[in-house]
Amino acid sequence: MSFGHWGKALRVNLTTGTIASEALDEVFLRRYLGGWGFIAYYLLKEVPSGADPLGPDNRLIYATGPITGQPLAGGGRHMIGARSPLTGGFAGSECGGYFGAELKRAGWDVIIIEGASAAPVYLSIHNDEVSLQPADHLWGQETWEVEQAIRQEAGERNMRVSQCGPAGEHLALLANVMHDCTRAAGRGGLGAVMGSKKLRAVAVRGTHRPPVADKASLDALGKWFREHYTETGSAIFSTLATMRMVRVNNSKGGLPTRNFSEGVFDRFEDVSAERQLETWNVERETCYGCPIRCKWVVEVDDEAFRAERKYGGPEYETTGAFGPLCGISDLRVINRANQLCNANGLDTIGTGVTLAWAMECAERGLLTSADTDGLDLRFGHAEAFLAMIEHMAKRKGYGAVLADGSMRAAKALGKDSISFAIQVKGQEMAMHDPRVKFGHGLGVAVSPTGADHMHNVHDNGYTTDGGIEDLKAFGVLEPLPWDDLSTDKVRMVRYGMLWRVFDNLAGFCMFQAWTPKQKADLIAAATGWNTSVLELFEAAERAYDMARAFNALQGIGPEEDRLPTRIHTPVPEGPAAGIAPTQEAMDGAVQKFYAQMGWDPATGAPTRARLEELGIGWIADLLEAQA
Amino acid sequence: MSFGHWGKALRVNLTTGTIASEALDEVFLRRYLGGWGFIAYYLLKEVPSGADPLGPDNRLIYATGPITGQPLAGGGRHMIGARSPLTGGFAGSECGGYFGAELKRAGWDVIIIEGASAAPVYLSIHNDEVSLQPADHLWGQETWEVEQAIRQEAGERNMRVSQCGPAGEHLALLANVMHDCTRAAGRGGLGAVMGSKKLRAVAVRGTHRPPVADKASLDALGKWFREHYTETGSAIFSTLATMRMVRVNNSKGGLPTRNFSEGVFDRFEDVSAERQLETWNVERETCYGCPIRCKWVVEVDDEAFRAERKYGGPEYETTGAFGPLCGISDLRVINRANQLCNANGLDTIGTGVTLAWAMECAERGLLTSADTDGLDLRFGHAEAFLAMIEHMAKRKGYGAVLADGSMRAAKALGKDSISFAIQVKGQEMAMHDPRVKFGHGLGVAVSPTGADHMHNVHDNGYTTDGGIEDLKAFGVLEPLPWDDLSTDKVRMVRYGMLWRVFDNLAGFCMFQAWTPKQKADLIAAATGWNTSVLELFEAAERAYDMARAFNALQGIGPEEDRLPTRIHTPVPEGPAAGIAPTQEAMDGAVQKFYAQMGWDPATGAPTRARLEELGIGWIADLLEAQA
Repeated sequence: MSFGHWGKALRVNLTTGTIASEALDEVFLRRYLGGWGFIAYYLLKEVPSGADPLGPDNRLIYATGPITGQPLAGGGRHMIGARSPLTGGFAGSECGGYFGAELKRAGWDVIIIEGASAAPVYLSIHNDEVSLQPADHLWGQETWEVEQAIRQEAGERNMRVSQCGPAGEHLALLANVMHDCTRAAGRGGLGAVMGSKKLRAVAVRGTHRPPVADKASLDALGKWFREHYTETGSAIFSTLATMRMVRVNNSKGGLPTRNFSEGVFDRFEDVSAERQLETWNVERETCYGCPIRCKWVVEVDDEAFRAERKYGGPEYETTGAFGPLCGISDLRVINRANQLCNANGLDTIGTGVTLAWAMECAERGLLTSADTDGLDLRFGHAEAFLAMIEHMAKRKGYGAVLADGSMRAAKALGKDSISFAIQVKGQEMAMHDPRVKFGHGLGVAVSPTGADHMHNVHDNGYTTDGGIEDLKAFGVLEPLPWDDLSTDKVRMVRYGMLWRVFDNLAGFCMFQAWTPKQKADLIAAATGWNTSVLELFEAAERAYDMARAFNALQGIGPEEDRLPTRIHTPVPEGPAAGIAPTQEAMDGAVQKFYAQMGWDPATGAPTRARLEELGIGWIADLLEAQA
Repeated sequence: MSFGHWGKALRVNLTTGTIASEALDEVFLRRYLGGWGFIAYYLLKEVPSGADPLGPDNRLIYATGPITGQPLAGGGRHMIGARSPLTGGFAGSECGGYFGAELKRAGWDVIIIEGASAAPVYLSIHNDEVSLQPADHLWGQETWEVEQAIRQEAGERNMRVSQCGPAGEHLALLANVMHDCTRAAGRGGLGAVMGSKKLRAVAVRGTHRPPVADKASLDALGKWFREHYTETGSAIFSTLATMRMVRVNNSKGGLPTRNFSEGVFDRFEDVSAERQLETWNVERETCYGCPIRCKWVVEVDDEAFRAERKYGGPEYETTGAFGPLCGISDLRVINRANQLCNANGLDTIGTGVTLAWAMECAERGLLTSADTDGLDLRFGHAEAFLAMIEHMAKRKGYGAVLADGSMRAAKALGKDSISFAIQVKGQEMAMHDPRVKFGHGLGVAVSPTGADHMHNVHDNGYTTDGGIEDLKAFGVLEPLPWDDLSTDKVRMVRYGMLWRVFDNLAGFCMFQAWTPKQKADLIAAATGWNTSVLELFEAAERAYDMARAFNALQGIGPEEDRLPTRIHTPVPEGPAAGIAPTQEAMDGAVQKFYAQMGWDPATGAPTRARLEELGIGWIADLLEAQA
């Protein structure tokens, strides 16, 4: 045992049915910390270059961090990773809720799943009792039914269930991994990896408090947060939660509308946080240990647009992707679409952006209803929109094409439709338009997971909206404009972004406004290590570099560090009209980012020098062996 | 005003006699922090490439840090810098005592001295009353007389005096800057820079407590240290102080003996800490704010070897350099030599190593007493040894040659005597033999100030003697052997070394065993910044890189990052017999160090990429403008 971690990994081979416990030593735990760090380690060690992401050689890895399972805000998060079938590269998707805490409380830091089962199974974990259970009877069921059935079989109401949904069973590359039917590890197509392994679910129940070195300090910091979070940047998440971004982004001219062709949505009020609160919101939930309660639950009691409490409610990203992006302004439609995705295990961002691409194709006459299962998929057409989500979940008709995301659909269609497929490395962009935050665009361009909003600094948050204060702890001392891509802006992005990657490693949620010092103090209290912001930041850089190295080994090079063409064309109207980062400026910023990260411009992978600086020269050996 | 600093620099032009106050803004103070950071900034901005170190274009800079002048252990340190006349590169020498605190308490963070006076002067500072005073009557006087005279003129018993001594007046390149007649900013030939400017002294009296953001926290940490330092690594400095290293190094076979030709000294007991305590030690002094009291005061009441309390007592470095290194085992001789150096302003390390070189020349018949003013300068010849120190201080006879250090003397003599001149970049090595701590050797090889013991990790301190714990806060998780020069060992050296450079920037003494976290908390309390170990570490890397860039601009390239030839030959006897880092291994480690630092192997200067990563791209502009 090592404080903050148990020092135990669970290894499950689905081909052979073997289950084993592996010890993790303190140097491993401290060097890689958790989350992406653990995931990237096992992918680099165990997944050979070119291994089929949907084949038995891929690994599906569940990882916690030293904060996961601790009784404080942030304790609920875990991360899932694999070689992504969507991007071909590193996938590491994180998730709140209760599953991560439950896994940690069961005595495990990591699960490594390898091989593939011949018949459907689920993995059952009750502390150190671990077994594979048949899941033929669950195959094809929606997530709620599966969760109920597993809980009943286990005789355990509080069993936490992580599952791939029908979309994953059908190997939809937009398939996510659902938890409690409401929390998604959404990105990277991880649901398809589960489906390919015939692993319908991982169900866990744990009853141990994770080992903590300095319980008094940890509890005191937790108490401080519960008593003071309303005085921090967390306060806004208690009131308007993520949905506030509808209004914020619209006011900046960066609310992605009609497939990113516009930045303001004339009916934005209809899909705003305030409107949802007035109409369909019935409850606020929260994640393990968190007082913020930012998870909204909606209910729509209407045959055409039924949305049930058990599937939670849409976040901002989902609202944006199903609303303005598709020209839809009816929250009932959005709430219903959210339920369809959560019930079937589809990533709402990928689904919304892919449908918006299809709608634009329809508007342009590149796709007709004859191509799309008879559905008239134009902007704002709610009925066709909802129907097509169901087709995607089951790979029915044209849904089989869209289920694999916009890049593949556009490549199949041709006709330059790739120019408005809003994705990077095959993964769809979230609802933050780089044209109103150039720094965020840089983060999205270089992200090893493709377009991803989780670990990229939202740069206006650090300038016009404040937020520079935390960055000062990293020596970034002055705010810079949102439309800046200077050397110093690149530097700001680098520090902000890597510190968010640290959140992933540790298990922190980005909505919890702990300061860098408080986070380091929490890790120290959990682990007993004399750790520092420097050590933790470098663990994040290590993990990020490992993800980039994994990508390079899979043949993903610098040419993929580019935003969609459309992002380089300004939106026509609104506060951001006429402004966009040019391709040349963004390429220049990417090159500066490479330089500051110590990446080789020829391969996009970290240099040996930087890897050795970070104490992971063994990865340079891997890169050189393949070169 | 900015907490932790006043935000004020004093600029004195000795050519014109003008005195001005300059404001320092918070971004400057936070980015460069203090000490080497401030010194390197002004040298890069103001001293043109090729400027004569002894000419009016050189700057003499006094710098404090955010801890200087705070009423706690470490508060007494300041740093002095210039273009070194000894190495031609960056000089930044640090010093304990009371002067730094007094300067800070007078309301100044930095003094920048430019130009040169036609006639001797001293600078008088009493809070914001600053004037240049004639010093013709002080010229030629020993340090004690000058200090007394200035205090009397000022009517101020507590005036703190920083002065160059007669050696500096004579432009001896081994001239130091003395404080309180007992504390030396010893290295780099800074006394000669003062002498060249006809500035005999800087005298200061200050009566303000430096601004502190969180007095309660700062005082609480100070109180903690006073109550608990005996439980930390500081304890040993309270008992056997630096002198303990005579026994420690001898036991490892690395007590430099007879000009580094041997590593054990048969009479080491005669020059040990214990022997000094039994015989000549009469008192223990301390520096401003420090409870450790590691400064020994000796008294020898003997006509031939007189040593007076007013000149303090020899540290380990001095004892080693005047004792075993010169084959001398009589503490009276060592104590007397210490007084001669302190009274005249000669660096004891440079003086001892240069004399040991001359003694070896005499033993080999390369120098005879006819060459050396009739003095028979062989190992152990105390009388000749003491006499030659006085010649060096006044540049008398062959003393004029030796006063400029071993490299110049060896080049003048020829006959391959350079192979046993124990110096790097023209500066003599301190009494830590790289043959028993390879990592220290690496630090000495790459140091921008030449062979220097102040900012290089003593690597056995981090392995066999413990000390790895602090390094874990930097992600250096495992101890490594003292004779290792692997990639990971280079990494260990890099973190340990740069964190010691941080001490310099902040004002901490390396004998005060504050943990990294405590140091960051102290800086935060002093300044009010939400700082972190990461920000502080990177400030140190910034300063170190700036010093390297300054060297490159002065034409000092990678070919100077080499240890003396002798260090690659094992000592013949003792525990370290037969062991030495090979030239090839050390060159390899230097190259690895370059890579991990982001230095260009062709120039030895930091790359643009690394400079921009650290937020100081303006230095890359300087380097490219000259290239």
